Amino acid sequence: MQIVFLFYDGMTALDAVGPHEILCRLPGAKVYRAALHPGEIQTDSHLVLKAEISLSDISHADVLLIPGAGNATSLSKQPEILKWIRSIHATTKWTTSVCTGSLILGAAGILSGLKATTHWAAFERLKAWGAHPTHLRVVEDGKVMTSAGVSAGIDMALILTEKIAGTQFAQSLQLGIEYDPNPPFDVGSPEKANPDILKGLKARMVARFENLE
Amino acid sequence: MQIVFLFYDGMTALDAVGPHEILCRLPGAKVYRAALHPGEIQTDSHLVLKAEISLSDISHADVLLIPGAGNATSLSKQPEILKWIRSIHATTKWTTSVCTGSLILGAAGILSGLKATTHWAAFERLKAWGAHPTHLRVVEDGKVMTSAGVSAGIDMALILTEKIAGTQFAQSLQLGIEYDPNPPFDVGSPEKANPDILKGLKARMVARFENLE
Repeated sequence: MQIVFLFYDGMTALDAVGPHEILCRLPGAKVYRAALHPGEIQTDSHLVLKAEISLSDISHADVLLIPGAGNATSLSKQPEILKWIRSIHATTKWTTSVCTGSLILGAAGILSGLKATTHWAAFERLKAWGAHPTHLRVVEDGKVMTSAGVSAGIDMALILTEKIAGTQFAQSLQLGIEYDPNPPFDVGSPEKANPDILKGLKARMVARFENLE
Repeated sequence: MQIVFLFYDGMTALDAVGPHEILCRLPGAKVYRAALHPGEIQTDSHLVLKAEISLSDISHADVLLIPGAGNATSLSKQPEILKWIRSIHATTKWTTSVCTGSLILGAAGILSGLKATTHWAAFERLKAWGAHPTHLRVVEDGKVMTSAGVSAGIDMALILTEKIAGTQFAQSLQLGIEYDPNPPFDVGSPEKANPDILKGLKARMVARFENLE
């Protein structure tokens, strides 16, 4: 069970670390944190993660996970990464993304004709890649599983764990990380948010994604 | 607003990265990831994080956060860290922990007489440090805020954000990370878990903590 996380400068740490905490515990899992240039990866919160292996040293994955980035850089400037994603996707049992990681899958041509999701502020952007944006926290279409913003990767990883290792094992992992969420507010999605807060955040966030090349 | 995360080998990545994703966005936040020996930190899931600064270069914090560790090593063998925690705690507005990070606060003598919580499997261990273990996901006693296992740090960070920067700001951050959790199962706490799954996990986990020096 080879599980590969794509790491890249500007990525959102929690997008990767949430699912990582779960998927690394899959039976027989061999987990790789891979980047175009291995070494220190600067996340968008200034936390530094390490990628131990080069993309060129990974030729297949059972599970591929692409995290998102709060300030997505131009996707068209990452042709080597997109090409690598396409080649690995051809070998996967599951190709997955968290948050705006789905924009990267889209740019790689993987979401054409598929139902998919992303961070709510990047939702419309998915259409440009031929995807059918779908308002669910986790969206599965064939072997492609995409999840909503940042924290949704935890839910996705548990769903994926159930598919790979069964219900009992997935429940054991959920109990292990004591995932019995109790957010202080019920405002974590656009539908539930205070309209003024949503408007303010939207004004700041949507522009980051809508003109992405 | 100086926010200091203690990093150490063996720590659980998500314990720190969940709250980090939230607290780093506090207005005016200056965040430090500090370790006894700065550099690469091996977490218990083999993900490597970087600590940029030495404990000896940090003399105060507005917020101190201590993550837990799945396989807690002997606390009595970390006197330098415990001494540092005590000295920083004397300067904080908030001293906080995630998961078994509270055992480290306990070993530092900070939880004596206080209500506190930890990972469910380490719950009884808190009493040895003079704490009053309290069955809540996030426990506040004076300026000490402790949270339950791993994923509970996300809830704690949002509660802390409200106290520091107000309700509107905390809600905006929650919407920003799309924290509208929808776990596939309702089994994330011992009370809700399948008894057989709980029994199996407990047998493996409790022993790690109960004889901790």
